[in-house]
Amino acid sequence: MSKAGGDEGGDGSSGETAQQPEDQTLAGKALTKASAGSIGPGWTKVSCPCCVSERVEPLVVVKLGEKVRPETKRWLIRLIGAPQKDGGAALLAHPGEEASGDIIVVSAPRCTLLRATEELGLCKTYCNDNMEAFSYNDRDNFKESDNMEAFLTLAERQYIVKYELDGLRAQRDLRIPGLSDSYALHHRDNIWQKLRSAGVIVDTFPLHNPGKLKDLSEAWYSGNQLVQPLDSVNGYFGSSVAFYFSFLDFYTWSLLLPAVLGLSITYFSGEVQSEVEESLSGSGEVTHVEDDSGLEVSGHMVQAVFSMLWSTVFMEMWKRRSSSLSYRWGTLHLAERFAEPRPGFHGDIGVNPVTGRVEPLFPDWQRDLRMALVSVPVVGLFLGLVVLGMLCFYWGEAQVQELQKDWDSLLAQTLVYMPSVLHIVYTNVLATVYRMVAQSLTEFENHREESAYENHLTAKVLVFTFFNYFAVLFHIAFFKQDVPLLRKRLASLLIVTQLVNQVTEVVVPFLVDRFISAPHRTEHEDDPEEDKFRKQSTLPAFPGLFAEYIELLVQFGYLSLFSCVYPLTAVLLLINNLTEIRSDAYKICKLFRKPFYPPVANMGVWQIAFEVLSFVSVVSNCWLLLLSPRLQKMFQEGGMSSTNILLLAVLVEHVLILVKVVLAVLIPDEPDWIRKKREHIEYTSMQALRQQKLTSEES
Amino acid sequence: MSKAGGDEGGDGSSGETAQQPEDQTLAGKALTKASAGSIGPGWTKVSCPCCVSERVEPLVVVKLGEKVRPETKRWLIRLIGAPQKDGGAALLAHPGEEASGDIIVVSAPRCTLLRATEELGLCKTYCNDNMEAFSYNDRDNFKESDNMEAFLTLAERQYIVKYELDGLRAQRDLRIPGLSDSYALHHRDNIWQKLRSAGVIVDTFPLHNPGKLKDLSEAWYSGNQLVQPLDSVNGYFGSSVAFYFSFLDFYTWSLLLPAVLGLSITYFSGEVQSEVEESLSGSGEVTHVEDDSGLEVSGHMVQAVFSMLWSTVFMEMWKRRSSSLSYRWGTLHLAERFAEPRPGFHGDIGVNPVTGRVEPLFPDWQRDLRMALVSVPVVGLFLGLVVLGMLCFYWGEAQVQELQKDWDSLLAQTLVYMPSVLHIVYTNVLATVYRMVAQSLTEFENHREESAYENHLTAKVLVFTFFNYFAVLFHIAFFKQDVPLLRKRLASLLIVTQLVNQVTEVVVPFLVDRFISAPHRTEHEDDPEEDKFRKQSTLPAFPGLFAEYIELLVQFGYLSLFSCVYPLTAVLLLINNLTEIRSDAYKICKLFRKPFYPPVANMGVWQIAFEVLSFVSVVSNCWLLLLSPRLQKMFQEGGMSSTNILLLAVLVEHVLILVKVVLAVLIPDEPDWIRKKREHIEYTSMQALRQQKLTSEES
Repeated sequence: MSKAGGDEGGDGSSGETAQQPEDQTLAGKALTKASAGSIGPGWTKVSCPCCVSERVEPLVVVKLGEKVRPETKRWLIRLIGAPQKDGGAALLAHPGEEASGDIIVVSAPRCTLLRATEELGLCKTYCNDNMEAFSYNDRDNFKESDNMEAFLTLAERQYIVKYELDGLRAQRDLRIPGLSDSYALHHRDNIWQKLRSAGVIVDTFPLHNPGKLKDLSEAWYSGNQLVQPLDSVNGYFGSSVAFYFSFLDFYTWSLLLPAVLGLSITYFSGEVQSEVEESLSGSGEVTHVEDDSGLEVSGHMVQAVFSMLWSTVFMEMWKRRSSSLSYRWGTLHLAERFAEPRPGFHGDIGVNPVTGRVEPLFPDWQRDLRMALVSVPVVGLFLGLVVLGMLCFYWGEAQVQELQKDWDSLLAQTLVYMPSVLHIVYTNVLATVYRMVAQSLTEFENHREESAYENHLTAKVLVFTFFNYFAVLFHIAFFKQDVPLLRKRLASLLIVTQLVNQVTEVVVPFLVDRFISAPHRTEHEDDPEEDKFRKQSTLPAFPGLFAEYIELLVQFGYLSLFSCVYPLTAVLLLINNLTEIRSDAYKICKLFRKPFYPPVANMGVWQIAFEVLSFVSVVSNCWLLLLSPRLQKMFQEGGMSSTNILLLAVLVEHVLILVKVVLAVLIPDEPDWIRKKREHIEYTSMQALRQQKLTSEES
Repeated sequence: MSKAGGDEGGDGSSGETAQQPEDQTLAGKALTKASAGSIGPGWTKVSCPCCVSERVEPLVVVKLGEKVRPETKRWLIRLIGAPQKDGGAALLAHPGEEASGDIIVVSAPRCTLLRATEELGLCKTYCNDNMEAFSYNDRDNFKESDNMEAFLTLAERQYIVKYELDGLRAQRDLRIPGLSDSYALHHRDNIWQKLRSAGVIVDTFPLHNPGKLKDLSEAWYSGNQLVQPLDSVNGYFGSSVAFYFSFLDFYTWSLLLPAVLGLSITYFSGEVQSEVEESLSGSGEVTHVEDDSGLEVSGHMVQAVFSMLWSTVFMEMWKRRSSSLSYRWGTLHLAERFAEPRPGFHGDIGVNPVTGRVEPLFPDWQRDLRMALVSVPVVGLFLGLVVLGMLCFYWGEAQVQELQKDWDSLLAQTLVYMPSVLHIVYTNVLATVYRMVAQSLTEFENHREESAYENHLTAKVLVFTFFNYFAVLFHIAFFKQDVPLLRKRLASLLIVTQLVNQVTEVVVPFLVDRFISAPHRTEHEDDPEEDKFRKQSTLPAFPGLFAEYIELLVQFGYLSLFSCVYPLTAVLLLINNLTEIRSDAYKICKLFRKPFYPPVANMGVWQIAFEVLSFVSVVSNCWLLLLSPRLQKMFQEGGMSSTNILLLAVLVEHVLILVKVVLAVLIPDEPDWIRKKREHIEYTSMQALRQQKLTSEES
């Protein structure tokens, strides 16, 4: 059983076939094989003859509540195994070792996987070597479509199981055996949600595949690799995770250029010493670098202008890379719009005008209204609370310093830290409350698609978090107009935050895992499979990619918003990111339970966040250059009034924004070859539509 | 014959059917009808039995050179009539009254029209009342598909004739009878271009349909209509013209709001008097309106902020209107990308990766290179020349005024006008040269699609023309910083230019037409049809919509860029446009030959131009408000330094731009119902593609 799925990892979908051990490719063809998995018999029967297979790969574990009665479990297993026309999930279920145990192991037969592949709109390699949207009817023309372990990645198979389970709806009113009548199901109720609220289902999680995981980790972070095995990451964890790591990779390599520039500017303007001295002496005396201030100032400006244009080119190039990755991973034509709505979506039952299917409908204008009248004001309120908190903090600091002058006692000494402590507590409480509020707001907006829900939730949390991080820096830059303080703050944030992050993110979980959890979890070869599954459930759940992305965004913010203040930013970030890749990879492979991730075509809302930041950076950089005391001095020596300097800065800003907009418009978002493939698909489907009308006419 | 096509106008495609006289709907069904057109017999034969019809509607006239030999004409008629598989145009040709005359009348049989409708990707009403992309194979399910005069509009039928003629290509090397060997055709040469360069074809133009034209003009401009018969305009002149008039209409009604605001601000701030006095006294003394300056300033600011936000909302609403018009007119899914390339397109013969057809291919990167390395520098050079001209003009003016002080003689008096005269001559020469250069640059860029060619050409001329118009105003606003002069200039431009335009555009052509051309062109009922056609060829060619659009753009520029200077702009423009609608309609109906226009889905590059202008307006308005002496005074009384005022202006500008961007993103570009229809088409064609693969598999 532990061999099931073998080493699908390796180097991506195209290479998978070659690496499949022969017995596994045969297994797909339902040949008799003696050594079936240790939980071999006991799976529910499949109705479809083509799906009968001796060997079933356990994909997902459903953890049941402790008090679940055996009849409920039996009912659930029957439901999972029943065909879709009878309201079941058409999956394979196994009750585990004991019929009354608290887990159900779920797998998926071939036909269910193929149908879901079509429904999700995944692209697969067609017989002509193009990636084309998979069609169940045309399955024989897709390569490897008789061997599910080569045809779909592990992440896709597991997501499909989750998709089918989440989509289970009651076909008529019925009572769940072993549960009280208050949990009775009504017509079209979502069964999985109901079971979860009834405490029958505690958790649903995909299983790690130890063999593949070992291969993946060896290729990913255990050596000195410079290239990440992105295709294998996509295969094992899904495209959401793969997009994060691809972006991290692309971003890190793109940092090389600004890093080299920053280094050389710092070196040539002899700023290394002054920089160091400044950060040591604190207040930053500028007098002793007067001699080469011209060089330094022009260096600053070169750095600023470069980083502003760099960020646009970087984002545009990433979009191109992103679309070719999406083509490669078969997620270019996801059909989420045309699929069933997400489980939490509710509305009046009606006929969808697009697909013609009967499903809940919810008018768009009502959603827009809810966003405009509820979500936006509430988010605004919380942002206001952040600002209020900051103002109170500054006021408190001032008050405390007043007090300290008068009293100068031990009490006053402790009081000094009061505002900071209070502010930190306030900020954390606010963030926690906000996260819950954001979740229920997004739920209330009632989005039809999972991705829309995710994007709106992410956007809400993102705006708040970003505001939280940068409010103080913006306050220093725009209101206090104190460049040396900004520089000090930035340097400390860059170094300290990164260090703290790395420690809390990796070292602590590693130590916990090694010395506290691991001893309880040592696996023996002769352990029954079920115990291994149960052990996986003791790992903590993966906290999601939000924290990872926001870290990158904040980094990118430091780099693009304030880079002209501290030219070594890019260098520090480059070093940080090289370790970040490894630590993130280690984390997701070893420290957490395997997460479910749906196939996605891009980074979603994060892409927009990076782009917006790149435009805001022009405003902030121009402003900071304007504030730079050296530049002010230089211009004043040149006989310019402060109004004229300001005018010049505004002019430069407008020109830069114009250049950025033009660059963004001129660099196409997808490479030429992808555009041609896309147009080809559009053309053939247009032709097919005409053809279909004709044939439906004739028949 | 004059009755042919009847009154297809009326009120649009949906209403056309009802208005069709009975005999015409019957005619489509090829019933014998006695009163066939006066040039009835003599048409070339159609090969397709379903297209045989007693009555043929003459659509297009091809005017031949005077020295064309009869054998060439016979060959040409044969070519036009030959089926497409033999390299012909599959149209109907008539040699006119005499076989050796200098015109060929061309019409189109049903099958050719239907096939071209599919090729162009036009949408027509399907049997379920939706607009769907027409499919020749499925023709019987489209409404009215057996009556071409109801199915296709006159403009579409005529454009299809032109499309077929322009697309004629030699299938093998051949000599044209009656022409020297230097005009021999090679394989895949474009025949129409060759004949034109050989002087065989002088002109190709669509025929007016007097009956429809009369109906159209009555519904359009002869009464006091407030609503334009846009559907009939689309039917008679095509969607390009209809989009222009729709935009003009939409824009004019949108002006109501700013006009009312401008009037009330002017009235309440008692500025009417000061405005008048200022423009009379010239220099504009501000002292005597001190008392209500606060009110006035806030009025100015309200006006400016309003017009900035108004322009974005207006453009977004227009986009929505535009997409619903495009759906209504069946141009939402134009398939130009998938059709044959435009006649002037050249490249190595290869297989198009999108459509799989053999046709000339030209790599995109090469086109991009040509644009970047040739077009952009040349356009830049010409813009530089405009600036140079302006600078020389100012320098000359200064010189002349110097001279005048010294000399003060008659010679000096005439010299005063020298710079202006030279500048006007220079500008005109430059514009003429530029237009030619732009044309050959765009030709050199070698665009595949006609619309891409048009858009690039328009963009080039547009940038130059706009620069030409506004360079002086920007110079006054940003360099001279002279608001009163700007105001004077703007008022005079608004009033004088509009008057001059109306006169030169309408009154002069009207007088010429009435008193010079018309007497030669009086039609008698008993004239042979052919003479009527020949008379149409004496009308001047329609100069195109460029001049009309640029007029609107310049207007919009005055309004949005400088509106805070002269609040009555919107009022003047509203009055102007109400007459403009009528004069433009009169012009295109009566004074010119009927133009060919391809079906289009939107305004093309003009849309972008208006949007860009709307964003530039924020910068210019903020700047002008900043310059406003009253505002400056008010702030200085409030104790703000000039730097702080500038900072405030920059802040306001950034906020306004942000608001505009957010507005533009939030207002969807197409109404919900159109989006649903589009998604439905995408969904069905996706399904059809899957289906097709299956059936092609089975067969």
